[in-house]
Amino acid sequence: VSASPATLKVGVVLFEGFELLDVFGPLEMLGEKGEIVMLAERLGVVASAQGPKSVIDGTLESVERLDILLVPGGRGTRREVLNPKFLEALKSLSERTRFVTSVCTGSALLAKAGILDGRRATTNKRAFAWVSSQGPQVDWIAEARWVEDGRFFTSSGVSAGMDMALGLIAHLFGRETSLTIAQGAEYEWHEDKGWDPFARINGLA
Amino acid sequence: VSASPATLKVGVVLFEGFELLDVFGPLEMLGEKGEIVMLAERLGVVASAQGPKSVIDGTLESVERLDILLVPGGRGTRREVLNPKFLEALKSLSERTRFVTSVCTGSALLAKAGILDGRRATTNKRAFAWVSSQGPQVDWIAEARWVEDGRFFTSSGVSAGMDMALGLIAHLFGRETSLTIAQGAEYEWHEDKGWDPFARINGLA
Repeated sequence: VSASPATLKVGVVLFEGFELLDVFGPLEMLGEKGEIVMLAERLGVVASAQGPKSVIDGTLESVERLDILLVPGGRGTRREVLNPKFLEALKSLSERTRFVTSVCTGSALLAKAGILDGRRATTNKRAFAWVSSQGPQVDWIAEARWVEDGRFFTSSGVSAGMDMALGLIAHLFGRETSLTIAQGAEYEWHEDKGWDPFARINGLA
Repeated sequence: VSASPATLKVGVVLFEGFELLDVFGPLEMLGEKGEIVMLAERLGVVASAQGPKSVIDGTLESVERLDILLVPGGRGTRREVLNPKFLEALKSLSERTRFVTSVCTGSALLAKAGILDGRRATTNKRAFAWVSSQGPQVDWIAEARWVEDGRFFTSSGVSAGMDMALGLIAHLFGRETSLTIAQGAEYEWHEDKGWDPFARINGLA
């Protein structure tokens, strides 16, 4: 891995109605290893599904390249899958990015933009039917905490993003680094990406 | 419990250098049951320890009453324990609040303000010595995921805030409500508030 901790650039795509933990769970883990920029269609502030508002650092077009792109879910995804301009900017940004990641229904945005075509991916288990309908060319995996396919890391619902982020850190820096970060956050990492009781609960396994 | 879901008012105290997951982990859970306001000493925006900035809805003095007050940790607590004006406003706000909660080193702020005197409380296990030195009149519990003492709910480091928030929701609305919220977030709740491998790792148990 060539990137040093100081140069790892993490970009998050925000939109009105993003899910709080989808964004800030992974950032808690990735923040130990990189510089974070909050991106959106427009500058200003963006309100989460739960209310709290985040400040945008730049537009999707403003970033030349990223090491990691994080796409959260949340009820706003239902609107953004119908926003071709946003999806086009997302696709273009994903092509300037080393690792493309999503949490929960964020994979619906990647899928609708065509970014996951021919790839294995997963998503929130309660919204599985809707998300998978956004990408008929994607190989959707129902039972997985997260799925890695090349430079694409997609995770299950909400809290699964933390486990996926630690999985990506392990891929880049080794397992010990992930265990150290998890311990610092007093977090019990679900290290097994096949661990998924929620697939069963939702009748998918 | 008299508060209906629509009227539960949750206030979060932010300061420069707050820890992301300390704030947004609990808010992911509490957001299902209430209206969230982001508070600080001054209006404007506040940067987290990891970089992302949040928009402030009001000052600590602007809120008449709260159902739940959430005080996060993060490296900014090292500065704020030396800020008497902030601690005074925090103490006053805690007296207008039904349930006072903290995550990680947030309990250092409550302790230094005298809010936890004579109460049982816990905190981050790596910072235990420093935090407990901020409140010699507090009965500090080393081994606990979170501690409940009357209207005070204090949790261990970072990710423990999510478990504590679900514990408070269980206290207010019943265990089934917490299990439903955890399942919606695909989160494995550590329901046992005595579960604490991090006390042992850090030589405290």
